[in-house]
Amino acid sequence: MALIVQKYGGTSVGNPERIRNCARRILETQRAGNQVVAVVSAMSGVTDTLIKLAREVSPECEPVEREMDVLLATGEQTTIALTAMAINALGGKAVSLTGAQAGISTDRVHTKARIVNITPDAVHKMLDDGNIVMLAGFQGETASGEITTLGRGGSDLTAIAMAAAIKADLCQIYTDVDGVYTCDPRVVKTARKIDEISYEEMLEMASSGSKVMQSRSVEFANKFGVRFEVRSSMNHNPGTIVKEETPGMESVVVRGVSLERNQAKVTIDDVADRPGISAAIFGAITQANITIDMIVQNVSFDGITDISFTLSAADLPKAEAALKAVLPNLGDKATLRTQGGIAKVSVVGIGMRSHSGVAAKMFKALADAKINIQMISTSEIKTAVIVEETEVENAARVVHTAFGLDA
Amino acid sequence: MALIVQKYGGTSVGNPERIRNCARRILETQRAGNQVVAVVSAMSGVTDTLIKLAREVSPECEPVEREMDVLLATGEQTTIALTAMAINALGGKAVSLTGAQAGISTDRVHTKARIVNITPDAVHKMLDDGNIVMLAGFQGETASGEITTLGRGGSDLTAIAMAAAIKADLCQIYTDVDGVYTCDPRVVKTARKIDEISYEEMLEMASSGSKVMQSRSVEFANKFGVRFEVRSSMNHNPGTIVKEETPGMESVVVRGVSLERNQAKVTIDDVADRPGISAAIFGAITQANITIDMIVQNVSFDGITDISFTLSAADLPKAEAALKAVLPNLGDKATLRTQGGIAKVSVVGIGMRSHSGVAAKMFKALADAKINIQMISTSEIKTAVIVEETEVENAARVVHTAFGLDA
Repeated sequence: MALIVQKYGGTSVGNPERIRNCARRILETQRAGNQVVAVVSAMSGVTDTLIKLAREVSPECEPVEREMDVLLATGEQTTIALTAMAINALGGKAVSLTGAQAGISTDRVHTKARIVNITPDAVHKMLDDGNIVMLAGFQGETASGEITTLGRGGSDLTAIAMAAAIKADLCQIYTDVDGVYTCDPRVVKTARKIDEISYEEMLEMASSGSKVMQSRSVEFANKFGVRFEVRSSMNHNPGTIVKEETPGMESVVVRGVSLERNQAKVTIDDVADRPGISAAIFGAITQANITIDMIVQNVSFDGITDISFTLSAADLPKAEAALKAVLPNLGDKATLRTQGGIAKVSVVGIGMRSHSGVAAKMFKALADAKINIQMISTSEIKTAVIVEETEVENAARVVHTAFGLDA
Repeated sequence: MALIVQKYGGTSVGNPERIRNCARRILETQRAGNQVVAVVSAMSGVTDTLIKLAREVSPECEPVEREMDVLLATGEQTTIALTAMAINALGGKAVSLTGAQAGISTDRVHTKARIVNITPDAVHKMLDDGNIVMLAGFQGETASGEITTLGRGGSDLTAIAMAAAIKADLCQIYTDVDGVYTCDPRVVKTARKIDEISYEEMLEMASSGSKVMQSRSVEFANKFGVRFEVRSSMNHNPGTIVKEETPGMESVVVRGVSLERNQAKVTIDDVADRPGISAAIFGAITQANITIDMIVQNVSFDGITDISFTLSAADLPKAEAALKAVLPNLGDKATLRTQGGIAKVSVVGIGMRSHSGVAAKMFKALADAKINIQMISTSEIKTAVIVEETEVENAARVVHTAFGLDA
């Protein structure tokens, strides 16, 4: 008998029929001789409807975050009750637990709380009584009993954290794709499903545009050594196992290729090259709450240099406003230039640590396809380049082929 | 500074605009120098939508009651969050509490739980911090932390029970009418709002067809001596105070007139008049889960008698089926007769205890109007008669006039 945690997203429980489908799959898993904790999200669309209501009653200001959590938590509470009913109607035995009832304790940061502790006594008791436990994703409670929510990707986090707390044998994240792919199959037709991927690779792929899971859930899994599987709720195909790195994994140099579109570049030309200049620029950016990606600083000439960085195109207006305010402090000649319409292609793999020549191979593949590289950034297990947005799909394809990833 | 509990029903919080109206009224009450706990129901329509979803995921059987409570409790949780947001947006300070968070402990009877205890520490703390407390009606939690709901009229009960627990100075039940009337104003145009009514009178009026509040909330208020006011959320008119009986109240012989339509009569003719016959008849009725109202047994003649009783017309088919099964045990000649299309008119008043002649005055008024009385039932503070449904409105009007209740 194995102890299994499953997680179903909002689309998988989007209407009564789909809820019954999930109920059947959960029940099958139990009847195959397992104990099952199933984490569910709010039915798709419900959270948006609640947010709309919140804005309507609170037109003068952002809705209070404490109350936003009380409101949003009803979404998952609805789903656990309905799924438990469906399982019971299908002849199974299920009980629902809210985050609070399941012993999920968080800090007090409403709308993006962090799990600080899990006391899974109620979960164990209900499992021991032969129940399937339907657990509300995305929510917890503070030490003083206030309802909190975990922010984006919160239901994945609930599943992985509960799997760690109850020492589950298996944690399955059900989604609408078969697993993690070597590249987005809509872009690269020859992309293959990856059988196994390390936490680090998964994190790098997530942070460079592959949006299967939020980074924080993967980070949590890495920290607590929770091996999990990303798989489809629409079929019974095996998915992708995300797990600790094993020696054999390094034999694959590049695990996958990520794309990130809608990037923009900001360049400040003719900046005085003296201490404090970078701090002034990036301090202003941080204060405006903007996340930046690559940074390049040219070699200085005559006490003057250029600094460029990339960011999401959506943040460009905010960044321009923030930088115009500090421009006078950056030297007499400093000027600001911005450019949209660019995108990022990254290759990721822990094999890069022990294999040299990855960057060279990537650049050659792009050169052969006459694709110009505008910026380059590398980390221990990733090499990323900025290209014209119009060339990004072709760039992904030629790189995918160059590293032997095609099916 | 007074401590005030207010309760707003589903219609009063039926959409974002109405929620903001309630928020304004609650805030006004606080700004007039009071502490306020406001109990709210689910937005009108929400509970029905949830029940429909429950039936859709559970077509094989009734939805599990434990999960029904988890599901339905989300309705009030949504309203408390939205109302608290609205109050904050209007410049006030409000926090929401679910039934569990507010310390409302119930027994384990899901979907119709009884409140066993209230520990209002969290309520007091939040009030002391200057907050308006938005409290979810209709819900509580068992000693082992399971979510329960209180059944019909549950939000009124939450308000009255919380008012008792925190020793509130005032408990206001907001509804869509100005208060309790001497009769239904749609029937008797000259009906007046009653300024003060005793718990007992309110209970008799509720049980004889005046549907302002469920009896259990009034009984709870009576038991714990909670004085409350029924008033309109649409205007600022004073409502009806429901309170313990005071000596002055007896000077009014009849407080009000109630109508109950859609009644039916069952008669069993030629029943053997021997011990155990009534037990057989009403045992069968009870087993079929049918509530009956008046019972009349004729004087026996030659060991044979007739027994009649009234019930809601909706229960008539069930009653017929139940009685046909026991008819052979009621004597050789026993036959069953049923009649729909009748209604009940009741006069209620604690003054009846000390004033004789109420029944005679009522019967004369009906006789003068040529309305035939089919059955009569009396209690210490109520006299009720059954008439043809087509005559019930006229009956109510003449009785209302006869007792000097017209405006």
